Amino acid sequence: MSLLSTIQYPCDLRKLTVEQLPEVCRELREMLIQELSSNPGHFASSLGVVELTVALHYVFATPEDRIVWDVGHQAYGHKILTGRRERFSSNRHLNGLKPFPSPDESEYDTATCGHASVSISAALGMAVAAQQQNTNRHVVAVIGDGAMSGGLAFEGLNNASATPNNLLIILNDNNMSIDHAVGGMKEYLHNLHTSESYNRIRNSAARSLESWGLLNDERRKQIIRFNNSLKSLLNNQQNIFEGMNIRYFGPEDGHNVVELVRTLRRIKDMKGPRILHLHTKKGKGYAPAEKNPTVFHAPGKFVPETGERLKTDATQLPPRFQDVFGETILELARNNSRIVGITPAMPTGCSLNIMMREMPERCFDVGIAEGHAVTFSAGMAKDGLIPVCNIYSSFCQRAYDNLIHDVAISRLHVVLCLDRAGLVGEDGPTHHGAFDLAFLRPIPGLTIASPMNESELRCLMYTAVECQDGPFVIRYPRGRGVQTDWHCEMKEIPVGKGRRISDGEKTAILSLGPVGNTVQDAINELKAADAGTTVIPAHYDMRYLKPLDEEIMREVAGQYEHIVTVEDGALKGGLGSAVLEWLSDNGYARRVTRLGLPDEFVQHGTPAELYKIVGLDKEAIKQAL
Amino acid sequence: MSLLSTIQYPCDLRKLTVEQLPEVCRELREMLIQELSSNPGHFASSLGVVELTVALHYVFATPEDRIVWDVGHQAYGHKILTGRRERFSSNRHLNGLKPFPSPDESEYDTATCGHASVSISAALGMAVAAQQQNTNRHVVAVIGDGAMSGGLAFEGLNNASATPNNLLIILNDNNMSIDHAVGGMKEYLHNLHTSESYNRIRNSAARSLESWGLLNDERRKQIIRFNNSLKSLLNNQQNIFEGMNIRYFGPEDGHNVVELVRTLRRIKDMKGPRILHLHTKKGKGYAPAEKNPTVFHAPGKFVPETGERLKTDATQLPPRFQDVFGETILELARNNSRIVGITPAMPTGCSLNIMMREMPERCFDVGIAEGHAVTFSAGMAKDGLIPVCNIYSSFCQRAYDNLIHDVAISRLHVVLCLDRAGLVGEDGPTHHGAFDLAFLRPIPGLTIASPMNESELRCLMYTAVECQDGPFVIRYPRGRGVQTDWHCEMKEIPVGKGRRISDGEKTAILSLGPVGNTVQDAINELKAADAGTTVIPAHYDMRYLKPLDEEIMREVAGQYEHIVTVEDGALKGGLGSAVLEWLSDNGYARRVTRLGLPDEFVQHGTPAELYKIVGLDKEAIKQAL
Repeated sequence: MSLLSTIQYPCDLRKLTVEQLPEVCRELREMLIQELSSNPGHFASSLGVVELTVALHYVFATPEDRIVWDVGHQAYGHKILTGRRERFSSNRHLNGLKPFPSPDESEYDTATCGHASVSISAALGMAVAAQQQNTNRHVVAVIGDGAMSGGLAFEGLNNASATPNNLLIILNDNNMSIDHAVGGMKEYLHNLHTSESYNRIRNSAARSLESWGLLNDERRKQIIRFNNSLKSLLNNQQNIFEGMNIRYFGPEDGHNVVELVRTLRRIKDMKGPRILHLHTKKGKGYAPAEKNPTVFHAPGKFVPETGERLKTDATQLPPRFQDVFGETILELARNNSRIVGITPAMPTGCSLNIMMREMPERCFDVGIAEGHAVTFSAGMAKDGLIPVCNIYSSFCQRAYDNLIHDVAISRLHVVLCLDRAGLVGEDGPTHHGAFDLAFLRPIPGLTIASPMNESELRCLMYTAVECQDGPFVIRYPRGRGVQTDWHCEMKEIPVGKGRRISDGEKTAILSLGPVGNTVQDAINELKAADAGTTVIPAHYDMRYLKPLDEEIMREVAGQYEHIVTVEDGALKGGLGSAVLEWLSDNGYARRVTRLGLPDEFVQHGTPAELYKIVGLDKEAIKQAL
Repeated sequence: MSLLSTIQYPCDLRKLTVEQLPEVCRELREMLIQELSSNPGHFASSLGVVELTVALHYVFATPEDRIVWDVGHQAYGHKILTGRRERFSSNRHLNGLKPFPSPDESEYDTATCGHASVSISAALGMAVAAQQQNTNRHVVAVIGDGAMSGGLAFEGLNNASATPNNLLIILNDNNMSIDHAVGGMKEYLHNLHTSESYNRIRNSAARSLESWGLLNDERRKQIIRFNNSLKSLLNNQQNIFEGMNIRYFGPEDGHNVVELVRTLRRIKDMKGPRILHLHTKKGKGYAPAEKNPTVFHAPGKFVPETGERLKTDATQLPPRFQDVFGETILELARNNSRIVGITPAMPTGCSLNIMMREMPERCFDVGIAEGHAVTFSAGMAKDGLIPVCNIYSSFCQRAYDNLIHDVAISRLHVVLCLDRAGLVGEDGPTHHGAFDLAFLRPIPGLTIASPMNESELRCLMYTAVECQDGPFVIRYPRGRGVQTDWHCEMKEIPVGKGRRISDGEKTAILSLGPVGNTVQDAINELKAADAGTTVIPAHYDMRYLKPLDEEIMREVAGQYEHIVTVEDGALKGGLGSAVLEWLSDNGYARRVTRLGLPDEFVQHGTPAELYKIVGLDKEAIKQAL
């Protein structure tokens, strides 16, 4: 690491010669492999942009110039080059480096990252700000082809092409999102591939003309236009970007750092919006990751020499909720031909791939396009299918209007399964599913449920699909449940019916979702410690946030002095609120203690650490009693 | 109306000869002009698609075949031809025809309409459902070029191009949204215009080949590809749609109904996704509307012979809130060069056009792209500008994740003004700003305010722009305020500080926003009727939903037996909820009555009618006391 160790900040990088950059790349890649093998995180994406990262910080005057990374999976190299090399082993740990770029952590991080397709819009804002303030600041957005399927990216492009600005967009095209990229845009970009040799000729011709002084800006425009037309004739393909008045360069090899530096220098000071299309390989330079980029997107620990992944033996552990979802939707779909599965680019992440393998024609990966996923599902439901659409809770924030406007107003039978609800852990504030209960509850006609364990999830899915005829949301967390023997028979759970889990006195705990298991643990400890003196509270698993179980509410309001609500969602507007509203509307004055997520963005760390911090662990529950 | 009067349903239309269709169009257009002149509604959009509407219902077997109208502004002709001619004078009235197509009203209406850019996604769902069920049903989406700037439309296109389906997309290109269309896509579509003559030749050649039996599907593909390349060489332009494997036809004249029928018949049964690009004129066939399509988008009453609009004399009336916004942002911007204005396609609707006229370079109409509007604003705020972004409340549901992820997590100084909050009236459930208070309140670090009147709006805007440094939302309703003398000096309203408007006993009313004026009216009536016997309640204007004024809360909780909350937003999760949460968290047991919007989608009608129905008028407030 003789070169890398001299680089604290990009200004150190810029002291090197261009010829030294391949060695910097090699060392950076080696560091990523070593670090990630022992401290898990997002891996293959960062390997794919090592050369781009080095070239960008070499050519542009960061942090004064702005680089906006889309999503941020790929930004580990960026972190290492921008003052965070020595702290990199704390990456994703509580109080350590943040999982994604964050302006709170470094002035080199320009925008909150985590959700896809944001970079063009945010960077365009910065580019316009630079213009309004007459600075010469350069602004670069780096976006993957997967993120290009998101509507927000298109809205950004559409606006970039019509607003005066000097934004440079770098399209990092590896034909992947987390799983393989899908959609027309991917096809389109793939076909641009065929013209690489043509482009080489064109580029070298242009460079010659330039060096001879024959190429001014006006002539360049004409020549580019003629070139594009010729190219589109030659390879039966059109260029979307130039159609929108965004100057297009590429495709180029994203792994030749010397050439990249040359290209970036050439286009850096051009005026107007530009796009540079790079072909990269996700996992580049590490054979196991190149071979299986989906697995090595976030592989966990692995042996750096072999790529063997160090898995703990999970055979005795309860299953992941996502796999219960995946197995169950397949079972349901086998018995009901109207069921179809929809995922916005997360077939592996939500385990819809289990159904996909057996019935690919009934599964739809629509790309990173949560809004479309829901409206598309609405159209299917309108004409007789039963769409089960799986979206991560925090990403569902992008489908909010679709859920209200396209599903709820028409009361369509769309089943929405929200994975990653509650605190997700190391991915931090952008990924916590903190707000879903609160933002879903006001939507009229929506049924909102959360299972306490795996068999409840199965029964809720059965209920949602087979026993209902309106919009139905089921939210459940990341990670494993509590039942090793989870493969129960499915039966209906009547809508709006919770259950009493254990009897007690004076205090009733009302919980929603898997946090109910923590409540049970707390009660069991109280019982174990009980010398006949401690009063043991009752515990109800509400199952449904909406409609709220009024029978339970009457029982609880009538028989207990104190009500404690426990939910792994925002306190403002969630279950606790619903309980307060019901009590007030029905004329009860009861003491209520609400446990849930505080009114702040919860940081990253392990789920256990975070639930302790926010006061949703066993001890906190015991204390509240 | 000799032909139109024979048409109850499209099956009647289909009994006519093609040659009779121009007369049907003439009569339909005449009916629209007469009806809309006396019963106001959306006007110019429907005039622009008269021929398309007639041709679609003539060629396709509706309702078995599906037509999905985007937005639905343009669907009045569709309503008249599908069983609603005789009830058309009830359009937009309470209990009358709904303002937009709605499956609840007619089997010819296939999707909830109102918000833009939805049609491709919803129609694709229907097209896939038809395939899954092996029906021969045709599905057609009709989308305007304005709506094509929305990310959802792109997500739909992207997915349509990669999923097996036979969707027909009709691009109704009039170079308008409500105001003029903006963005690269618009430019792009406009340039396709230049190839019309070329296309005519190409189409007639293709038709000849076909009639000679020389054109099979494989050859057609090759020829189309060659044609496209040639075209793009000839007019320096590429075709986005064909680049995404969506077969493209056009552009054609959307006002030649005979030719339209011919084209639709020709492409109706082709396989795979197709797009037909039509040029139309918004307001077609009515000179005043052709001349000024923005004004005649929804012109109110007018004299059909002259186009003269029948305005009531507004000089003595209080201003519209939107104009107070428009005048005030201009004033603020004159004094602070960092202020910029952003609107997603609503410069006239939100009156940002007032600032646009004086400082066009500091105003950004980003197209129908609410998500981008907010993320773009975030980028600007990051680099030192003060973006004031104006979005209709119900459309802000589309920017929810952008607000959380791109603005709130980074605590950026973005000022979001939500127009059309509360019940908007005749536009109905898709347009009511019912949910904003509830979905905004859980977002950490967000300041949420609502002014009771015009001068409060000005002062809140001043506070948000000049005195704050974080995300700030101000929501206010459609229509006029209460102050004719509104042009007050602007001063800070400290964040989280409400005000006591009037003293009283026993009961305290806490209101948020302009509904506070209704509260005052109710109190004044009580006072007038008071013979010394009625107890008069106190009234507090909270101003801020978040942070809640804790001083007022302590005062109220300490001094009054009964608290009544009044808000023009969803009861679940809004102000009433916030008050209950505060009381519970602070150990107060007080009787609370919450007035607000019920847990159902409120229908259309005048605001006065609707507020009476939901129990938010003066009488309802008096009754609650």
